[in-house]
Amino acid sequence: MASTQPLRRNLTPAKVVSVRDGDRSERADTVATEEPMEIRVGGPGQEAKAVAVTMRTPGGDFELAVGFLFTEGLIQPNEVHRVVYCDNLPGDDQRYNVISVLLDRPFDAALVRRNFFATSSCGVCGKAALDDIEVRCAPVAPGPEVAADLLSVLPDRLRANQPMFDRTGGLHAAGLFTAEGELVSVREDVGRHNAVDKVVGEQVLAGNVPLAGHILQVSGRASFEIVQKAAVAGIPIVSAVGAPSSLAVEAGERFGITVVGFVRDGGCNIYTHPERVA
Amino acid sequence: MASTQPLRRNLTPAKVVSVRDGDRSERADTVATEEPMEIRVGGPGQEAKAVAVTMRTPGGDFELAVGFLFTEGLIQPNEVHRVVYCDNLPGDDQRYNVISVLLDRPFDAALVRRNFFATSSCGVCGKAALDDIEVRCAPVAPGPEVAADLLSVLPDRLRANQPMFDRTGGLHAAGLFTAEGELVSVREDVGRHNAVDKVVGEQVLAGNVPLAGHILQVSGRASFEIVQKAAVAGIPIVSAVGAPSSLAVEAGERFGITVVGFVRDGGCNIYTHPERVA
Repeated sequence: MASTQPLRRNLTPAKVVSVRDGDRSERADTVATEEPMEIRVGGPGQEAKAVAVTMRTPGGDFELAVGFLFTEGLIQPNEVHRVVYCDNLPGDDQRYNVISVLLDRPFDAALVRRNFFATSSCGVCGKAALDDIEVRCAPVAPGPEVAADLLSVLPDRLRANQPMFDRTGGLHAAGLFTAEGELVSVREDVGRHNAVDKVVGEQVLAGNVPLAGHILQVSGRASFEIVQKAAVAGIPIVSAVGAPSSLAVEAGERFGITVVGFVRDGGCNIYTHPERVA
Repeated sequence: MASTQPLRRNLTPAKVVSVRDGDRSERADTVATEEPMEIRVGGPGQEAKAVAVTMRTPGGDFELAVGFLFTEGLIQPNEVHRVVYCDNLPGDDQRYNVISVLLDRPFDAALVRRNFFATSSCGVCGKAALDDIEVRCAPVAPGPEVAADLLSVLPDRLRANQPMFDRTGGLHAAGLFTAEGELVSVREDVGRHNAVDKVVGEQVLAGNVPLAGHILQVSGRASFEIVQKAAVAGIPIVSAVGAPSSLAVEAGERFGITVVGFVRDGGCNIYTHPERVA
């Protein structure tokens, strides 16, 4: 088992035929790497079992695995004993695509099916999805209070820290900021939920969760799953460049999270708990 | 069981505190509805079994269910006997969130686990993901040939047919066009894969698959799953406003699909099979 993370190839060279103003030219280009990653979980003396496969951009794989398991309610922050690559797999292709999260307590694989089909047993509707999260996360702490002006500069601060976007012209990003607007961490990924999981997973591994007093800034829209992940991680403000969905707004309302959308052109829309924005 | 689709509430009213130029005002707003939907499958005399839950924008639910099952390789286009809402559920909340697709042959629920964990058994890497699709779809037919000028107008044609985007300011869309640029169908959803599944599912139910000679235009980026779905549906050209991922490019190369990205400002980048673009 390899317990350190290699520098992964998160950019892939591509050849492109570019058409501009009637001209056609072939040139070298760069695209964001997308590769499947399998997440396995095991306890002491247990064989780690596969619980999910996600398409992701390599890099921050351990953080992604831990962030995913935590925000989906499968593990608690203090239960992670060790995270490793499974390097007993045939072929080099998948060498760094299988991650095992080893816990210091037994893991019940039956939980997984129950969790991912939670809505089946308790009702398939937004309310049931919200109920499901409520039972497994503490209420988000009150505060902080931030200025609207501060929120409006966060997208640019996030964008200034997206080296992969610079090379590829398109990639989701999530950034964790302090209430003073200082960047704590930024992660990029082909999947917007992965970018958030990487940011949260890093903080879980550093022992910093719950993330009271912080702001999560995302590059795109705010869906239910983004606000859900913030709720589990205790992040009080979720700010999105794009629009929120109805269930993102309902989740923000119910879990005490300030959901901000359309943070652009110097303004923003506050959908829930506006008391945090001065 | 209800076999017709109701008009669903795909827009949700919201109250928003809008901050612009130092002014703060409260006003009514509209956000895109996001609700879970459970997809069940059964054969003659079988109880339909849940195979997936997806967060989606209500509307086109039957198309979404059929498109998802088809593009994920769980059903063939000619096997659908009937699609219904399960209305024997407790409470009104989930009344239209559970869809059963009834086949005219027995359905093996064990297939589902095998399919969704396909990468576990045959290797976790991009190549294995491509192999998995190759075994279950016919090669995409050659042609059509389209002008680059035609491709560059499709995003605007798509945008002109997004009534929900007009109301909410943010929602994914997928549009199916003929090689002459005529709009066949457009669908909007909070999930970009759902928008594609709705478009494809509609054509499956109409008996029009494979969709040789057509163009799939998406509002965002092109990920692996978008090109995968096009491959299964036999769509030869996938055009995206944003960037493609590495695995989207590899999938296009391998399955004979023309993948076009950055279709904006009158130009575009052709990543694979440029022979289709004149």
